[in-house]
Amino acid sequence: MAIILKGDVVAQALNEESSTLVDELKNKGIIPKLVIIRVGEKKEDLAYERGAKKSMEKVGVLTEVKALPEDISQDEMEKVISEVNSDESAHGILLFRPLPKTLDEEKIISLIAPEKDVDCANGNSLVGVFTGKGGEKGCFAPCTARAAMEILKYYDIKISGKKAVVLGRSLVIGKPVAMMLLDENATVTICHSKTENMEKICSEADILVSAMGRLKSVNENHVNTNQVIIDVGINWDAEKGGISGDVDFNNVENSVKAITPVPGGVGGVTSSVLANHVVKAAQTKTNFKPNREDR
Amino acid sequence: MAIILKGDVVAQALNEESSTLVDELKNKGIIPKLVIIRVGEKKEDLAYERGAKKSMEKVGVLTEVKALPEDISQDEMEKVISEVNSDESAHGILLFRPLPKTLDEEKIISLIAPEKDVDCANGNSLVGVFTGKGGEKGCFAPCTARAAMEILKYYDIKISGKKAVVLGRSLVIGKPVAMMLLDENATVTICHSKTENMEKICSEADILVSAMGRLKSVNENHVNTNQVIIDVGINWDAEKGGISGDVDFNNVENSVKAITPVPGGVGGVTSSVLANHVVKAAQTKTNFKPNREDR
Repeated sequence: MAIILKGDVVAQALNEESSTLVDELKNKGIIPKLVIIRVGEKKEDLAYERGAKKSMEKVGVLTEVKALPEDISQDEMEKVISEVNSDESAHGILLFRPLPKTLDEEKIISLIAPEKDVDCANGNSLVGVFTGKGGEKGCFAPCTARAAMEILKYYDIKISGKKAVVLGRSLVIGKPVAMMLLDENATVTICHSKTENMEKICSEADILVSAMGRLKSVNENHVNTNQVIIDVGINWDAEKGGISGDVDFNNVENSVKAITPVPGGVGGVTSSVLANHVVKAAQTKTNFKPNREDR
Repeated sequence: MAIILKGDVVAQALNEESSTLVDELKNKGIIPKLVIIRVGEKKEDLAYERGAKKSMEKVGVLTEVKALPEDISQDEMEKVISEVNSDESAHGILLFRPLPKTLDEEKIISLIAPEKDVDCANGNSLVGVFTGKGGEKGCFAPCTARAAMEILKYYDIKISGKKAVVLGRSLVIGKPVAMMLLDENATVTICHSKTENMEKICSEADILVSAMGRLKSVNENHVNTNQVIIDVGINWDAEKGGISGDVDFNNVENSVKAITPVPGGVGGVTSSVLANHVVKAAQTKTNFKPNREDR
């Protein structure tokens, strides 16, 4: 039987760290605030918004929602970003995407101030992940990628020197988590839809991170008994009538060392990471006034 | 006996492409120009400068050298960058590094205009490599990383689906070449000083790119008879009284399918890539006036 790497305890530990920092900030008269920018009323966005608000509340972070009309113009949208950028009381920005097709999304995300880009939406933040120097510069990694790393850290799983295999190469999770594992001295292999002999490659991994978004595509042929699996997939499972991961949990559960469940694994940690990023952004700001030109 | 992947023919093909583009640009009244910025008179810088000048001449690209005093101030240095940025006749900037310790190198390189950053010195360019969208945005990859890719392309070596192992994780070559191989659909593994079982991992590679900078550290234990080796290492070999690569060439020559020699491999392609980048930068500029805010 594998060790089940539950996310709730990891989230709780992160929340405790965040709460302590929030108390310190409040003593200095600062209340960390996340500004959520939502265009339209998409169901997924509203669900994410409710979840994020709740997570912020838990640790004492304020949330302000800028609910914008579906037909907002590019100019107006850019003005909103610029206003939040210069709002001293706003420490983090979460912009729901994709934006309506009428907007130049890439331009808009590029305008988010790097020090408030708490979910690594723009290039300034991504380059921090790629160079491994993001932390030093007050840049934030994508929340889901950091959630995966926090789980490994919490459960004290050795990364240095180990073979890590990442399934998926998206900018939101695959590539960033690969770089973060590399920073922790793992030997990292990135697999994707064009990979040949995927089963063999996966079966040799000490740590397997799956972020393909393909229901039950990892099974007993991809694993070994010493393997730790971090399942980042969130897929609709019609058979179960609920959410399942990329990994066929029941099929591998007795053949691996440890595994995150879905739901209840990585997903449960992501919004705690977001809250932690907002708090860190507020904290960084109290320590120095970043000169945007310096970045 | 392995196929020897010589760089000279690759450089020649690249130069021919560049020359044709230069002729087209000249017909429009544009002469591509590289501005080399050198601080002090370091022997390596001067040698590189001579080589670069020669490569530019070969394809009809002008070179202007800004030779600056060792004791130049930060302000003066920033002014030079800003002048070259706004000089309409300058299409590429090559800044020799490391700069003297008295200067804030990171700040200075961050000021180089992305569209003139022909050797991928700053973060704007690196993020293009990381996202795989650098080409679309007129960003340039590090010249040595592209040189390695050009060799694979010239010799028609299949990359898609193949296992590529990159030794080294520097921002100049290891990480960028890993991302470029991934863009070409290789399954990429990044190894480094902390990697365990390096020999076994390497011996399973279809393509092995070594960029460790460690003399003869790759030998017959790291290879297989179907393997293609790109040796990016440039190391002083006292025994030979000259330059050798990371790979013990004589030791593996009969055990692999193909290999780049050192010297005469990747090194011979790099400055042709640089010239090609300057030409492309000039060409891009004639096609559209990039709006810096858009990047």
